Amino acid sequence: MRTFVLPVLVGFGDCDPSGIVFYPTFFRWFDLSTHEMWRAAGYDYARAQREQGLIAGPLVDVGATFRSPATQGDRVEVHSRVSEWKPKTFRITHQIRRGDAVLVDGFELRVFARPDPGDATRIRAVPIPEEFRLLFG
Amino acid sequence: MRTFVLPVLVGFGDCDPSGIVFYPTFFRWFDLSTHEMWRAAGYDYARAQREQGLIAGPLVDVGATFRSPATQGDRVEVHSRVSEWKPKTFRITHQIRRGDAVLVDGFELRVFARPDPGDATRIRAVPIPEEFRLLFG
Amino acid sequence: MRTFVLPVLVGFGDCDPSGIVFYPTFFRWFDLSTHEMWRAAGYDYARAQREQGLIAGPLVDVGATFRSPATQGDRVEVHSRVSEWKPKTFRITHQIRRGDAVLVDGFELRVFARPDPGDATRIRAVPIPEEFRLLFG
Amino acid sequence: MRTFVLPVLVGFGDCDPSGIVFYPTFFRWFDLSTHEMWRAAGYDYARAQREQGLIAGPLVDVGATFRSPATQGDRVEVHSRVSEWKPKTFRITHQIRRGDAVLVDGFELRVFARPDPGDATRIRAVPIPEEFRLLFG
Repeated sequence: MRTFVLPVLVGFGDCDPSGIVFYPTFFRWFDLSTHEMWRAAGYDYARAQREQGLIAGPLVDVGATFRSPATQGDRVEVHSRVSEWKPKTFRITHQIRRGDAVLVDGFELRVFARPDPGDATRIRAVPIPEEFRLLFG
Repeated sequence: MRTFVLPVLVGFGDCDPSGIVFYPTFFRWFDLSTHEMWRAAGYDYARAQREQGLIAGPLVDVGATFRSPATQGDRVEVHSRVSEWKPKTFRITHQIRRGDAVLVDGFELRVFARPDPGDATRIRAVPIPEEFRLLFG
Repeated sequence: MRTFVLPVLVGFGDCDPSGIVFYPTFFRWFDLSTHEMWRAAGYDYARAQREQGLIAGPLVDVGATFRSPATQGDRVEVHSRVSEWKPKTFRITHQIRRGDAVLVDGFELRVFARPDPGDATRIRAVPIPEEFRLLFG
Repeated sequence: MRTFVLPVLVGFGDCDPSGIVFYPTFFRWFDLSTHEMWRAAGYDYARAQREQGLIAGPLVDVGATFRSPATQGDRVEVHSRVSEWKPKTFRITHQIRRGDAVLVDGFELRVFARPDPGDATRIRAVPIPEEFRLLFG
């Protein structure tokens, strides 16, 4: 499957008092890359929600392994791809690199959902739409 | 007018490589205090939006003067009050303190709005609802 | 081992356009709880760094499973404890709850480190200080 | 004086439940643009701190006027320039645009500082280094 690459500039404010990227920031970039990958593939999740009531991408599970730090002014890349499809979940694998160096390896496990008909405050996972899957085939 | 006080614990991740609070974080706390002040006064902005299509509080103008820094582990307080009412805007004055020391003086100028009937992507300021104003009178 | 509990107020700005907590925010709270747990136990990581050149807590691995969402105005709790000690790593288990409901289960795997003597831009994991471990015994 | 332009991609997570950029995020971009402008001009603030003990850029005052919102997926630009020099302060004017539309007008008033010799927890503004000023003349 194709890999999407998002360039990211590391800001002073993305770093913490130890001078390196505050780790939750990496997840912001994972999420940003996921959304940009969708957009680049032609999937309009805002429209899917508006027109089909379909909630694209609630997170079920995430994880990351930190191999090397990044700091202010670094130009890094998030390399993202859909690495696994199941009927109701899909896994996006993310790797953050600076040049050839791998800084972070991570993943997001996401679903598609609709509001629960019996309880409007809850959502329920639904099968992944075929049209979505085909965009990343 | 009454002053609302929100206690805030300064996190490691709220600070930047110089070891003090990254300044946009103070605005996060201004916003948090504004919303909590509304809630404490009994104003349910999420419900106002759902039921009346009324958008509570878009920002028009903000500012802050930084007098002294805060760092990780500090326990600070945001002191907030509505300091001025005009027909279509209201000003919230915020002061961030650590004990007796004033760290930040700031304000938010906000409005009430509705979607523009001629252009769904835009909003239009409306007179401040009397029921809202009375809560802070 | 003892569990540390950190109360957290969910802000408007902690949530994303889908109206629920933006998932990287949960990791901000994991990190905040870890640092507060250390402070509550009497461990001064800033001082350890200043006086012993010891870097407390670089992340090696993190993960989270999202069970139920949280939204603006929710009052949640982060329940944190050191759940595993190895010679050079320790695991902190975090659970985010709203009342009895479990919203997020997660963990952080952290180390203690010192600057690499051969390359100042790198760090090297060291054995976990006994004084640190005893605080959580 | 020259204007520096920083392109920014608006993320899903930069937006709040009302679907538009959470306003403190604009200040993150102001700060990011300021630091990039310095870097582009050849000023290495991290090195100035390390080698000269000079703290580049503590904030004294900031402000912003919000003219039009931005939302997820927007590609905006921060246009930044030093608009005023005084002996101990300098003003950076920021404008955030999407195409020809002006979204935000703002500024940062910053200083140069050194640790206060009488109280290590405080800093003291110093005259702006000539070498810094010349880079933006």
